[in-house]
Amino acid sequence: MSSEYGKNLKISIFGESHGKAIGVNIDGLIPGEAIDMEELFSFMSRRAPGKNKLATKRCEKDEPIFLSGITNGVTNGFPVCAIIENSDMHSSDYSKLKNTPRPSHADYTALMRYNGFADMRGSGHFSGRLTAPLCIAGGIAKQILARRGIYVGAHISSIGTVKDDDFPLYPSNELFDAVAKKDIAVICDSKGEEMKALIAKAAQDGDSVGGTVECAIIGVDAGIGSPMFDGIENRLASAIFGIPAVKGLEFGAGFGACERLGSENNDAFIIQNGKIVTKTNNNGGIIGGISNSMPITLRVGFKPTPSISKQQQTVDLSTMENTSLSIGGRHDPCVVLRAVSVVEAVCATVILDLLLEAK
Amino acid sequence: MSSEYGKNLKISIFGESHGKAIGVNIDGLIPGEAIDMEELFSFMSRRAPGKNKLATKRCEKDEPIFLSGITNGVTNGFPVCAIIENSDMHSSDYSKLKNTPRPSHADYTALMRYNGFADMRGSGHFSGRLTAPLCIAGGIAKQILARRGIYVGAHISSIGTVKDDDFPLYPSNELFDAVAKKDIAVICDSKGEEMKALIAKAAQDGDSVGGTVECAIIGVDAGIGSPMFDGIENRLASAIFGIPAVKGLEFGAGFGACERLGSENNDAFIIQNGKIVTKTNNNGGIIGGISNSMPITLRVGFKPTPSISKQQQTVDLSTMENTSLSIGGRHDPCVVLRAVSVVEAVCATVILDLLLEAK
Amino acid sequence: MSSEYGKNLKISIFGESHGKAIGVNIDGLIPGEAIDMEELFSFMSRRAPGKNKLATKRCEKDEPIFLSGITNGVTNGFPVCAIIENSDMHSSDYSKLKNTPRPSHADYTALMRYNGFADMRGSGHFSGRLTAPLCIAGGIAKQILARRGIYVGAHISSIGTVKDDDFPLYPSNELFDAVAKKDIAVICDSKGEEMKALIAKAAQDGDSVGGTVECAIIGVDAGIGSPMFDGIENRLASAIFGIPAVKGLEFGAGFGACERLGSENNDAFIIQNGKIVTKTNNNGGIIGGISNSMPITLRVGFKPTPSISKQQQTVDLSTMENTSLSIGGRHDPCVVLRAVSVVEAVCATVILDLLLEAK
Amino acid sequence: MSSEYGKNLKISIFGESHGKAIGVNIDGLIPGEAIDMEELFSFMSRRAPGKNKLATKRCEKDEPIFLSGITNGVTNGFPVCAIIENSDMHSSDYSKLKNTPRPSHADYTALMRYNGFADMRGSGHFSGRLTAPLCIAGGIAKQILARRGIYVGAHISSIGTVKDDDFPLYPSNELFDAVAKKDIAVICDSKGEEMKALIAKAAQDGDSVGGTVECAIIGVDAGIGSPMFDGIENRLASAIFGIPAVKGLEFGAGFGACERLGSENNDAFIIQNGKIVTKTNNNGGIIGGISNSMPITLRVGFKPTPSISKQQQTVDLSTMENTSLSIGGRHDPCVVLRAVSVVEAVCATVILDLLLEAK
Repeated sequence: MSSEYGKNLKISIFGESHGKAIGVNIDGLIPGEAIDMEELFSFMSRRAPGKNKLATKRCEKDEPIFLSGITNGVTNGFPVCAIIENSDMHSSDYSKLKNTPRPSHADYTALMRYNGFADMRGSGHFSGRLTAPLCIAGGIAKQILARRGIYVGAHISSIGTVKDDDFPLYPSNELFDAVAKKDIAVICDSKGEEMKALIAKAAQDGDSVGGTVECAIIGVDAGIGSPMFDGIENRLASAIFGIPAVKGLEFGAGFGACERLGSENNDAFIIQNGKIVTKTNNNGGIIGGISNSMPITLRVGFKPTPSISKQQQTVDLSTMENTSLSIGGRHDPCVVLRAVSVVEAVCATVILDLLLEAK
Repeated sequence: MSSEYGKNLKISIFGESHGKAIGVNIDGLIPGEAIDMEELFSFMSRRAPGKNKLATKRCEKDEPIFLSGITNGVTNGFPVCAIIENSDMHSSDYSKLKNTPRPSHADYTALMRYNGFADMRGSGHFSGRLTAPLCIAGGIAKQILARRGIYVGAHISSIGTVKDDDFPLYPSNELFDAVAKKDIAVICDSKGEEMKALIAKAAQDGDSVGGTVECAIIGVDAGIGSPMFDGIENRLASAIFGIPAVKGLEFGAGFGACERLGSENNDAFIIQNGKIVTKTNNNGGIIGGISNSMPITLRVGFKPTPSISKQQQTVDLSTMENTSLSIGGRHDPCVVLRAVSVVEAVCATVILDLLLEAK
Repeated sequence: MSSEYGKNLKISIFGESHGKAIGVNIDGLIPGEAIDMEELFSFMSRRAPGKNKLATKRCEKDEPIFLSGITNGVTNGFPVCAIIENSDMHSSDYSKLKNTPRPSHADYTALMRYNGFADMRGSGHFSGRLTAPLCIAGGIAKQILARRGIYVGAHISSIGTVKDDDFPLYPSNELFDAVAKKDIAVICDSKGEEMKALIAKAAQDGDSVGGTVECAIIGVDAGIGSPMFDGIENRLASAIFGIPAVKGLEFGAGFGACERLGSENNDAFIIQNGKIVTKTNNNGGIIGGISNSMPITLRVGFKPTPSISKQQQTVDLSTMENTSLSIGGRHDPCVVLRAVSVVEAVCATVILDLLLEAK
Repeated sequence: MSSEYGKNLKISIFGESHGKAIGVNIDGLIPGEAIDMEELFSFMSRRAPGKNKLATKRCEKDEPIFLSGITNGVTNGFPVCAIIENSDMHSSDYSKLKNTPRPSHADYTALMRYNGFADMRGSGHFSGRLTAPLCIAGGIAKQILARRGIYVGAHISSIGTVKDDDFPLYPSNELFDAVAKKDIAVICDSKGEEMKALIAKAAQDGDSVGGTVECAIIGVDAGIGSPMFDGIENRLASAIFGIPAVKGLEFGAGFGACERLGSENNDAFIIQNGKIVTKTNNNGGIIGGISNSMPITLRVGFKPTPSISKQQQTVDLSTMENTSLSIGGRHDPCVVLRAVSVVEAVCATVILDLLLEAK
């Protein structure tokens, strides 16, 4: 019943796609943190549509307006509320769909949950557009973390069956930056080209395609987190499944570890430059819910965008008969392109929240 | 910092492997629910070690003692606290390990988190033994759900690279029961035999092996859950990553969906017996965080047990030099065998919690 | 660390007195509730300054702008975010005060808490102005409760030593309305005149005066609430101490009961019109944290406004020497006048939250 | 729905008066804190009945058994669960009362809340006996706080209309100790004698009497707490109303401040020994929810024990007719005597919780 996550740092998202504005309220930020607005907008522009030809052509000017919590560019310790006004709304798009729920969209479940009162124009509060305010929170968290030597980076690890290279054992902030600057956020450019071709093909066919995002968080000291239900994995998982279209999540070697022997998968401890590290990082930097100082790594699985223009089978709710529909309008043939920075955003807020717990 | 999950139904786990007792406190149960203790113990025995020759030979008598919350076999509405006394403790086992953290175990991260004060004998509060009180909560939740037509079942979907059949589109409670009664919780018996052979081989080699558990929850009406961070996936994820050794989680088609086109993955709506259902269930019964009345399905990935008797590389914390260790004692060569009912337990408590929210 | 309260209905307040806007995010409202904006604004106007000559003369146009959660005047089930833009800001007022914390104001504690980064112009996030968004939430809650036969009303029970009549054993919604319409929210008009005289005298002297507000909630069925830490009293208390200047809270006979014998204070049960009620209501409708169907009654104590123009002793933080100050500008000589509707607002949201728990 | 409070330090109480055991689960304690069991038992004995002739004569041996979280007398960082077994149960006492709810007791509200399933023997989970586990948590918190220079003390400030002296502006730990050692926890012994006479008289008459407890917390630095709904007052209030029979709470001058002018009530800042303090402490050490380094002071109001042997009017639920009852058995004629340490316990846990938030 709550569009909120976090414990000492609380992130609340509000707004519907076709309402007056969407936004975020961030409660619990440390006072005295300078927020570089240029850098924040630059981070947010990585998520914005229209960055490359593959993403939806809607022209959203996602410029956040800060209502509170920041004075003269510095956090004042009070809740930070920022909004993004909605302008490009074509509400007529939705009326046709009211009686024919789109397959794999929240139309039907929202109808059942909200008794028909949910404002589902543009997918309402379920819209991918709601990830913009998430990026406001995440962009701020990233700046605060960076000042403490913690960096969060992500790349597209796969689109369809095309796989990018994995992050190296020790990804660097420089690598994160290099990937972020590309028009498609991959490590290996040739794989990026293949991905682009795949997406273009899907778009041409009125179809869409899924993919995965790998994220790494470097610079977290050992000993952060807690056992059982309040560990790093629990907290990240709880928030990451809040990103629309996410259907899978794995840490470190993840499901790959399930096929291995213990002797293959265990991360041997070694001394390196006087510091205790592990030879491999199959645990993704987390054991027993607690950081071990290795990079925290995770992979997030996104289903293909449900909005496709291909003919699909559905039901007519007014007649309770089978029917079909074709979804018009502009769609992202692949949400993964824009989801990279969203994953970073969520991870940054969760890690910052964990750091706010006194040890 | 908290071994607790749940919102209206709160489950708190306490205890260390080699302390006086472990237990669970369950706050928020509906009053007036009869608890069949025979059925509860029978559910718990599915998790208990020693059920078959493959699991650890430690003789735990995991009989719960109920301290509160149940009067004459019926929930009285007050918190239910139940404990399991620890008896079979070989504390000497641990002292040797103090300076040589076991690879992929929580020894090192606990040291960093608790400054050396954590009681890590038998892995302390990180021990798989802590899943026994989880099963008390889960067993109770299962009984309450069943009275409302909701059933939770799971099976071993893979051990190493050996895969069991998937649940059918509409798994039945009868299938759940049949699987639960087997000495290895699989759908396909011949695959079960292969798994047993694989585990026996790993045990013989002083090694261990990972695997996955598929779980399904049937009978949940459409409209349960919420968007963004309080949906069914968020709640389940947050709790399931609290089960020791879990490194991956996917819903419905999960990571498989990431390789597909939208036209392949979308779940078409159809009318069946006058009811709206979907032709496929790639969303695992959840869209936008909310149930659509189809079975809720998920797959949980377990890494291979870190405790293996094979020689492993580690560090000596007292000298800060590389060294090696071989872990003696009794270990589960595969935690997945015993994890099946634990996954059911966690899912049952989370679903019951969600049902306790007024709509 | 959080400007939020509520469990199933979450109310988050954001904004500083002299920032861009203040506002509220309300998460968990039932979908399908029509919100009468006229009625809401009318409720909010009871709190607004300038209603009578005794309150501060600042001209705030506290018109809320709804950004989300309401479509065509009806709650859509998504978070309701509403903001009030700040316009009448005289920031220069504050700069002089920076080094001389105002006695009994949050200036000094905010300095220590936020390391000097808090934006304390107009008292920042501590300002009484932040109760305007609380009234948005409360006004909405009141409408939803009224549809369920639950009414919330309050009056000024005392200003200084002048006491109004108490609510009768069974206050009615009509009485609530009648009191709310008066220029001073009292039951006994002659007492109201005495209060006005007392406030006018304080204003004239550059001083301020404290007082109390009595609130009643009628129509709550027996059996709402929970024992120990999640009862009606706990929930109300936690929220009510969030209203600026509140220093005391009592339920039913409250501190008066502490001077009595059990035989005097116990509320005898009697049958009245076939219903079980109590002869007296010294428990204020709550026993063991749970409602007994009698009116829920409470009294809230407000200290006198700390802002007075009389000379006061303080310290100069730059020199660490004793000094004195006189606070210029416009102040409310008595916050109690405007606090009546704020108390109602908070009570309405808390009761609505409690009703959202499934039984 | 939850017998729990706290954010980073969570205290969960479980058990019924006549169940197998009552207890507490404490999650979030700092690892490495030695717990002096002698001191803890000594603290708990202040609450135990039978300390003086005025309290109930029931012989409870409230010796806690620690199940987890403490190894070799030191907190290990995992949840601390401690139980107290119930032994002295006279269940027959209750059966007679089932149809005739005791006035001002939770019998009737529990019936409505739990549909008749609540185990109300000995008042069940509403029993004052549940404050014993609270004292386990509080006694531990007090020891941890004392190591950080923070002391919590309380005294009986009134019984009926007999008032003890107030705490001085700067109460000392020595005063706390001296008061705690007395057979009646007062500052002024002659007032204590008057109180004892009053209680003895009430007991003789088969009646009971109410009273208040004043508590002070010294040594808390300025800057602890937060504005609005997460301040020291909110947190303390939320927990303190969880103590049975509490009907009022005020901080600093409390309701007394409501009768004053601002110029009388404001706490002037002064420099004293190079430190900023206030000349008076009418705010009770808290302004805007945040500590100002002055003693935190509060007064808690307890209604007279509802259990009296005098004839009382009630209803017969089986016939829905008016009737009367006289409550037999052993009762405390005044709960305030035993509540002093309970108030200290709750305050200690709340303050420790607040300290666990990183600044």
